[in-house]
Amino acid sequence: MTVKENGAAAKIASYKTAALSENKINTVLTSISENLILNQNKILNANADDIKKAKENGMSKVMLDRLALNEERIKGIANGVSQVSKLKSKIGEMTLVTTRPNGLKIFKKIVPLGVIAMIYESRPNVTVDAAALALKTGNAIILRGGKEAFETNRELVHIIRKSLEKEGIDPFAVQLVEDTSRNSATELMKMNEYIDVLIPRGGAGLIKSVVENATVGVIETGVGNCHIYVDETAAFEMAKNIIVNAKTSRPSVCNAAESILINKNIAKEFLPPLYSELSDKGVTIYGCEETTKIIPCEKATEDDFYKEYLSLALSIKIVSSVDEAISHINKYGTHHSDSIISENKENVDRFLGGVDSAAVYHNASTRFTDGFEFGFGAEIGISTQKLHVRGPMGLDALTTYKYVILGDGQIR
Amino acid sequence: MTVKENGAAAKIASYKTAALSENKINTVLTSISENLILNQNKILNANADDIKKAKENGMSKVMLDRLALNEERIKGIANGVSQVSKLKSKIGEMTLVTTRPNGLKIFKKIVPLGVIAMIYESRPNVTVDAAALALKTGNAIILRGGKEAFETNRELVHIIRKSLEKEGIDPFAVQLVEDTSRNSATELMKMNEYIDVLIPRGGAGLIKSVVENATVGVIETGVGNCHIYVDETAAFEMAKNIIVNAKTSRPSVCNAAESILINKNIAKEFLPPLYSELSDKGVTIYGCEETTKIIPCEKATEDDFYKEYLSLALSIKIVSSVDEAISHINKYGTHHSDSIISENKENVDRFLGGVDSAAVYHNASTRFTDGFEFGFGAEIGISTQKLHVRGPMGLDALTTYKYVILGDGQIR
Repeated sequence: MTVKENGAAAKIASYKTAALSENKINTVLTSISENLILNQNKILNANADDIKKAKENGMSKVMLDRLALNEERIKGIANGVSQVSKLKSKIGEMTLVTTRPNGLKIFKKIVPLGVIAMIYESRPNVTVDAAALALKTGNAIILRGGKEAFETNRELVHIIRKSLEKEGIDPFAVQLVEDTSRNSATELMKMNEYIDVLIPRGGAGLIKSVVENATVGVIETGVGNCHIYVDETAAFEMAKNIIVNAKTSRPSVCNAAESILINKNIAKEFLPPLYSELSDKGVTIYGCEETTKIIPCEKATEDDFYKEYLSLALSIKIVSSVDEAISHINKYGTHHSDSIISENKENVDRFLGGVDSAAVYHNASTRFTDGFEFGFGAEIGISTQKLHVRGPMGLDALTTYKYVILGDGQIR
Repeated sequence: MTVKENGAAAKIASYKTAALSENKINTVLTSISENLILNQNKILNANADDIKKAKENGMSKVMLDRLALNEERIKGIANGVSQVSKLKSKIGEMTLVTTRPNGLKIFKKIVPLGVIAMIYESRPNVTVDAAALALKTGNAIILRGGKEAFETNRELVHIIRKSLEKEGIDPFAVQLVEDTSRNSATELMKMNEYIDVLIPRGGAGLIKSVVENATVGVIETGVGNCHIYVDETAAFEMAKNIIVNAKTSRPSVCNAAESILINKNIAKEFLPPLYSELSDKGVTIYGCEETTKIIPCEKATEDDFYKEYLSLALSIKIVSSVDEAISHINKYGTHHSDSIISENKENVDRFLGGVDSAAVYHNASTRFTDGFEFGFGAEIGISTQKLHVRGPMGLDALTTYKYVILGDGQIR
């Protein structure tokens, strides 16, 4: 099938999934969850093919680990689908907006977006997660995974579609794009007649390419150059613990801290103990000129302050005030998650108000920006744009609304 | 100033307007409203220059009418600003999302989008309306109006900026792009570092160009190929009145009907009286082959069914069922406003559920799709996309939210 054919089939399927009852959707999700377990050997065989090819192509150990499935991971994926079936979606909710003097009743009704397209990289669990979340909200989905995971994705989507068919649901509600070249991604980005939203998930390069080339609506996700600003009134022990946690607890994720800003009045006192703890954890520090005078570290270039290291590295800059911290974050950051450590209410308020990010923290680690931590019960990604959805995306991100207007002959 | 400089200045200004109190904003809006009246002679002079040039360039009568201001129109514009100052915006509202077991409190706070850019055509009232709505919601705005209205727009923006300055507000919160060539529009479309949302307002060509070329987030507005489906159970008199109203009460607006679908079982009986009424009003009909056998009319090409005539013309197609009507609307329509005239509950429910449009009507004219009719007290435009905002856009369309997370040292 061509990508255009995927789109046309998804659009038709989306009108059918939009009409499904919540019960029916939950039944098919349960069936998908069970069938993933029942067919785990097929999945593992397909995954072994991908792994073999990836090794031949010299894939890195970290990437191989992301790609690899085992019984436990498949169980985790299946459990995830079962969890999604237990969530409550708002699809179908209808509220009265207004009754006009002429008797016209205007309602607002929550409905699915329609056709979701997702372009993502190697992790095969995204395939199942995304399909489950799309189905739960009555959407159809077109999945364009990376070529490294193609055999695994094909088997997973095959199992999902078999489950859909068995329940009498149009299997074109979940489709995997067969062409994993750059062409198919580009084609998806321009398919306005069939696609209602495109969600890229992956590295900064992928996100940038989608934002620059897509004509369909995009939800930009995931790039996180997260900051922690240590105010002159900060409790030092707390500040140090939060920085160490935000940088080292899971350095490869988007809510990990990448840059530390420190008020000049406390830098000399605060930096040495922070340095010794970060060094113990193996963190490489890129410091501004002032920082290099206080602790031994690499000298940061301007480019370092724009960087999302996603590894045991971070930049440090000494600033003269909370206002300089805010300006720095708004300029160099990615509008993801930023935290102030301070005991001064005025500075805290300035920071929380002035920093233009999806999540702003006081006295806490940036690592909490997460759909599960926020109580959404699911996460499609973390939006760093302001339109439609911002921050961690739960089921609501995959819905829109329509106005339903009931009359008895009204004209204007 | 270059467009880039406009952008940079708007971004800085937006951080200041975001921090303004509602009182302060309302004071400046009142001042703008007053100053528009006080300076009406200057506005009329500038407008006379635009009108003179437009006449020399052979502008059509309809367009000249859109461009022309007079005392009454200026009063209307000034009143509009005063009305906006009386609306309630949600900016600053903060609700608790969840308190985590570890004591972390997660709030959701309504905040401005930041920098809004608007590309629009000749009507100068849009300049003031858009600036007032942007300011009311704490945003900065970059206005890129048409070259035909440049002198008028310049004077209007000058008055607004003087009012801002007098109240101690950064005047770069409202800027008019000086370059009215296509270049400046294209530049705005790609200025992701400074612009949070781009709203095009104008004809289908402008909207299409923005959707295809913009890399910044866009809210697609206004193109309305609106349908009325006359079911076999329709009350004929009601159906006829609604069609005549939806087509002829104001043919140039986006919520006017452009295409009528008629159930085959009633076509022979329903069409002749409809035809006689539409003919009396001077409406040109483009009918499908079946239609041409019943009433005298032009033969419609497939292209006619895609058309937004915006004039006293419409297409008519005979369909065999409500399902065919739904499929036709979803294929040929623009997802704006569509109505079913029917006395059969099952057909009504199928139509309201199945038609994928911002507003779906039962037994009423499509002409009600409007921010004021919906009780929003304002209208920025009518969104025909599904992300962020759908249908008539009130103040909420110019807001987003951020998560504010308050802790006392929590780490993950």
